[in-house]
Amino acid sequence: MERFTPTERSAIKRLPQRGRYERATVKEILDEGFVCHVGFVLDGQPFVIPTGYARVEDVLYVHGARASRMLKALSDGVQVCVTVTIVDGLVLARSAFHHSMNYRSVVVFGRARAVTDEAEKLTALHAFTEHVAPGRWAEVRGPNRQELNATSVLAVPLAEASAKVRVGPPVDDEADYALAVWAGELPLRLAAGEPVADPCLPAGIEPPPHVREYDRAHRRV
Amino acid sequence: MERFTPTERSAIKRLPQRGRYERATVKEILDEGFVCHVGFVLDGQPFVIPTGYARVEDVLYVHGARASRMLKALSDGVQVCVTVTIVDGLVLARSAFHHSMNYRSVVVFGRARAVTDEAEKLTALHAFTEHVAPGRWAEVRGPNRQELNATSVLAVPLAEASAKVRVGPPVDDEADYALAVWAGELPLRLAAGEPVADPCLPAGIEPPPHVREYDRAHRRV
Repeated sequence: MERFTPTERSAIKRLPQRGRYERATVKEILDEGFVCHVGFVLDGQPFVIPTGYARVEDVLYVHGARASRMLKALSDGVQVCVTVTIVDGLVLARSAFHHSMNYRSVVVFGRARAVTDEAEKLTALHAFTEHVAPGRWAEVRGPNRQELNATSVLAVPLAEASAKVRVGPPVDDEADYALAVWAGELPLRLAAGEPVADPCLPAGIEPPPHVREYDRAHRRV
Repeated sequence: MERFTPTERSAIKRLPQRGRYERATVKEILDEGFVCHVGFVLDGQPFVIPTGYARVEDVLYVHGARASRMLKALSDGVQVCVTVTIVDGLVLARSAFHHSMNYRSVVVFGRARAVTDEAEKLTALHAFTEHVAPGRWAEVRGPNRQELNATSVLAVPLAEASAKVRVGPPVDDEADYALAVWAGELPLRLAAGEPVADPCLPAGIEPPPHVREYDRAHRRV
C-alpha cells in the first residue's frame, strides 16, 4: 500500500491542502526527526511526553521515558497519538495575520503494545541508536541481559497516519503586496555544533565521522 | 510565587533529579521555544497537535491551528496538556544503553479557555508575532476586525507546570570507561539559514535585523 487511508481521526481537516498520505512522505519525516511527542490518556487526563523513537519497517518504536505512566496507561489498552514535528522555517508575511511556519509533521494513531520479545526489543534498541547516530551501534557496547530487562519499549503500528506539510513563501492579501515590508522565509534547521568530549575521555580518541559530519536532513527511507 | 507546586500530574516521576519547578526556568524554556504540542482528549481519543504559542506573564496563549477539533474538545471544558521541548544535544555514551539526549522541556496542565475579549486577543496576537520574531509587529500590518474574528486563540493559565532538564556528558557504567570509544555530547541547536525573499518582493527591500540576526537562544524572561 503506497498511501495511508485517511480516517476520521487521521484526515487533515484544517488546511486540507497541506495533508499528505503517501507512505514515503510519512516515513521520510519520521526518519529525519528523532523526538516524538506521545499523547495518552490517564483517568481522563491527557499527557504529552517527549521521547525518542525509531522506525523499523511499518512499526514505530517508542522509548520508555516516563515508562511507568505510559505503561500504566497502556495496560488499559488505550489509544495513543504520536506526533513528530520538524520546523523548516519562519514564514514572514506583510501582515501579522498571514505569518506562518514551514514545517513537516506526522501524526500516528493506534494502540501501543509493550515489546516483551527479546529479539524484537534488541531490534528496537538497535534502531534507536542507529536512528540518532547511524554507524554508532557497531562502535559501542551492546546491551546486556540486565539492560534489556530494564528497558521499556513500546511498539505502535504504522497503520493509521498522516502528514502535514507547508512549504514556500507567505501568502499575503492582494493589497498588502504594495507594502514596503520585507517578506519571505527564514529557513531553520537543527544544526550540530562542535562535539564536546566527555571529560573522562582519554586523550587520542577522536570523534568518529558519524559525530563529526552529523546531519539529519535528507535521510533515506 | 517563585516555584510551581508539584502536583500528582506535574511532578517529574521518572528521573526526578531532572525536575525543575522554578518559575524562571519554566518561563525561560517557554520563551526560547516557539512550537508546542497540545494534547487533548476527544471522545476518549488523545490528539497531539503541534502549533505556535506565546507567553504573556502567567498565561500561555495557543494559536488556533486545527481550531475546530481543539475548540470542540474545549467546549466540553476538558483538560489540556501543553508540552514544549528544546533539544540541546545528543549524549553519546560508551554503551548503547546509556545513550541519551540533553534537552529542556516544559509540561503545562490546565483547562484552556477560548479568548473572546478583543483586547486580550490583540495582546495574544502581538505576543505570537513578537515571540517568533521580536521587532516584527511594528513593521507589519496589524490585524483588522475581520482577521481578529477569524483567529482562534486559547489561553492556558501558567499555574500547574514543571520542567525537565538534562545537561552534561554521558554517565557510563564504571567498567565501560576503559573502552576506546569516543563519548561526549554533540550540541544541537535550531539555526537560521539565509533569508529567502518572497519572489513577489520588489527589489531594494532588505531583510531587517530581526531576520538577519535571528537567534532564539538566551531569550530574556
